[in-house]
Amino acid sequence: MDLTILEPVSKTAQERYEELKSKGLKLDLTRGKPSAAQLDLSSELLSLPGVDDYTADGADCRNYGGLQGLTEVRKLFSGILGAPAEQIVLGNNASLALMHDTISFALLKGMSDSVTPWSRQGEISFLCPVPGYDRHFAICEAYGIKMIPVAMKEDGPDMDQVEKLVAADASIKGIWCVPKYSNPTGTVYSDEVSARLAGMKTAATDFRIYWDNAYCIHHLTDQKVEVANILELCAEHGNPDRAFVFASTSKITLAGAGLSFFASSKTNVNWLMGRMQYQTIGPDKINQLRHLRFLKNEEGITALMERHRQLIAPKFEKVLEVFERELTGLTGVTWSKPLGGYFIDLEVPQNCARRVVALAKQAGIALTPAGATHPYGVDPEDRTIRIAPTFPGIAEVSQAAEAVAICVKVAVSEGR
Amino acid sequence: MDLTILEPVSKTAQERYEELKSKGLKLDLTRGKPSAAQLDLSSELLSLPGVDDYTADGADCRNYGGLQGLTEVRKLFSGILGAPAEQIVLGNNASLALMHDTISFALLKGMSDSVTPWSRQGEISFLCPVPGYDRHFAICEAYGIKMIPVAMKEDGPDMDQVEKLVAADASIKGIWCVPKYSNPTGTVYSDEVSARLAGMKTAATDFRIYWDNAYCIHHLTDQKVEVANILELCAEHGNPDRAFVFASTSKITLAGAGLSFFASSKTNVNWLMGRMQYQTIGPDKINQLRHLRFLKNEEGITALMERHRQLIAPKFEKVLEVFERELTGLTGVTWSKPLGGYFIDLEVPQNCARRVVALAKQAGIALTPAGATHPYGVDPEDRTIRIAPTFPGIAEVSQAAEAVAICVKVAVSEGR
Repeated sequence: MDLTILEPVSKTAQERYEELKSKGLKLDLTRGKPSAAQLDLSSELLSLPGVDDYTADGADCRNYGGLQGLTEVRKLFSGILGAPAEQIVLGNNASLALMHDTISFALLKGMSDSVTPWSRQGEISFLCPVPGYDRHFAICEAYGIKMIPVAMKEDGPDMDQVEKLVAADASIKGIWCVPKYSNPTGTVYSDEVSARLAGMKTAATDFRIYWDNAYCIHHLTDQKVEVANILELCAEHGNPDRAFVFASTSKITLAGAGLSFFASSKTNVNWLMGRMQYQTIGPDKINQLRHLRFLKNEEGITALMERHRQLIAPKFEKVLEVFERELTGLTGVTWSKPLGGYFIDLEVPQNCARRVVALAKQAGIALTPAGATHPYGVDPEDRTIRIAPTFPGIAEVSQAAEAVAICVKVAVSEGR
Repeated sequence: MDLTILEPVSKTAQERYEELKSKGLKLDLTRGKPSAAQLDLSSELLSLPGVDDYTADGADCRNYGGLQGLTEVRKLFSGILGAPAEQIVLGNNASLALMHDTISFALLKGMSDSVTPWSRQGEISFLCPVPGYDRHFAICEAYGIKMIPVAMKEDGPDMDQVEKLVAADASIKGIWCVPKYSNPTGTVYSDEVSARLAGMKTAATDFRIYWDNAYCIHHLTDQKVEVANILELCAEHGNPDRAFVFASTSKITLAGAGLSFFASSKTNVNWLMGRMQYQTIGPDKINQLRHLRFLKNEEGITALMERHRQLIAPKFEKVLEVFERELTGLTGVTWSKPLGGYFIDLEVPQNCARRVVALAKQAGIALTPAGATHPYGVDPEDRTIRIAPTFPGIAEVSQAAEAVAICVKVAVSEGR
């Protein structure tokens, strides 16, 4: 190691790091959570629908029933989901539950086109574009579904790799996709990638694209990015039942008290409801009605998302500004500049990510554990750090970003 | 058949039945649903908690988190559930989902004390006291869990039969129990039955009592019946992890937008949360807070249940009055006189139940399909009819009860 070059940097970084630790900060950049100010935008929900307002679909929403969810709410989200109302099913407050449950239903009973339940087919695998979302990977790990990482490129997963794998291996039953403003890389799937996913030949007859469109309208810039309609593409390619689309209002209205959505072919909708009927008499229709009264129409949703953007875009800009200032030119250090979503992906030199997270922790800054963005919690190169800037206030975000940058410099200076 | 005895009765019943059909009624006694008037009692929920009220447990209830549910809400229901707050987990709006999910978790991963997942143990069976609740049986049927009927006696399941079965057969993993005001018989489990359930020797190491206390505070008379605390009994008998207690506010507040509860040992609570963590970041805490603000304390819940009773007890009395008048003395015809719950169990002579339901249908009265109260939808004696009088208005209940009585008489007169 050429100490004549590294030492001055190292000293400065180390000094700044000691200074940082002495501040006794307590900051949290771990999860993609909305801030209180964002939740305030939907406070009106807390007194809706009002004591005399409980009828929809010609039924009393307070009572049992309505497994598929209110028609008007399914219509309201039809455009956003890219599916007609009859191809949408509403869940309760967590789209994660819909993803989890479709997998546990498939394991126990099979998909609509499975020969036998997945749990009786020996090894089951999912493709996992990396870096990706830890809660997706956790479901697979919980049920012993083998995770096969595939590289994430500029415009989505490496489709050469994906096509080769799914054509050869019938154990591969699905792929996790966050097609727009992907967690954590901010990647937007190109139309070509989407079309190849829809059309590719899969050895498994019951292969599913888990299209988690969590950030479908969560723009950070005026460039409101669109991705292809995966349901239409699958249908066009003769694979009408291939895609499961998921979304929620967790980052539109209230993170813990929103609505979740499933959209797919009529066959898959019938399959899901055929399974859900044993689990529930129906989702919380009052919360659906509450959302209908609050959001009113698609324009209402768009206007609300614009207000979210005004609150969070400056936080992203602040992080990028600090990284630009502190980290530009550092070999092996890059970061995403997302056009939407909830994360910045910070890539550090090999074998540095865990060290950066540990250093940050010692200085009072909680980061998502290094490795969480990869299957089994193991980032083989130990490079990826997920930055979630939405929850803290902007001053804290600025402090935290600077702290992270200092930690990166220290880790790099250690010549790992 | 001795026509000299039957004919006059037959003629009258037949004439009344023709008259009935000509009325073009459209009445529904199928499901145990609260009436609109009952739901009105909780209308206040529809504007709660209010725009500025979202903090509990020191956290913002609008945001993610809180897998176990708000402490204050768990405390509020602690007495009703017979478990300390730390042994309670809150679900969303359906206790059925908690029942379903614990079974699917056991199938895929095993209970806390399972050697392997249930789905890898060959045949799995549940004991089903009959008549019982169709949605319990439907979960078993959906997952291929063999249902073994056991007789329901005056004070609960036939424990001689139960003890013999569970001691001999390790495939028996559970028993469905509605211990108080059972669906549909109104049966209340005696302390002796509860103690025997808690203490019996089971061949399966991971046997579970599914204690669905759906009607725990749903009294119809001043005689507020109590049942034993099954969790304490199981602990006393050295089987601390044997019972899963379920309840909900579906018939306390809003049927489709209430809270659901799971209570068990600390081990089982940890097991459940260990599984649920892959399914959700947490239940809808705003709905929990809403319920806390509305119900306030246990006295608030008791007062609310008293108002429910004032609305529904007269409906039960009306049905019993009509049955008393119309059906007394008819051989083989008996009915329950429940002290709580949502149902009257009408037993008709062998091979008559389906005929009664069919006759009622032709006259515009929807009854729960005969057989629904038994595993696989088959009542071997074809005797049980479940009457659900809570939903219609009292005039309609009276009309419907009379209609049912006429149908019973017609069926009996046919000498089936």
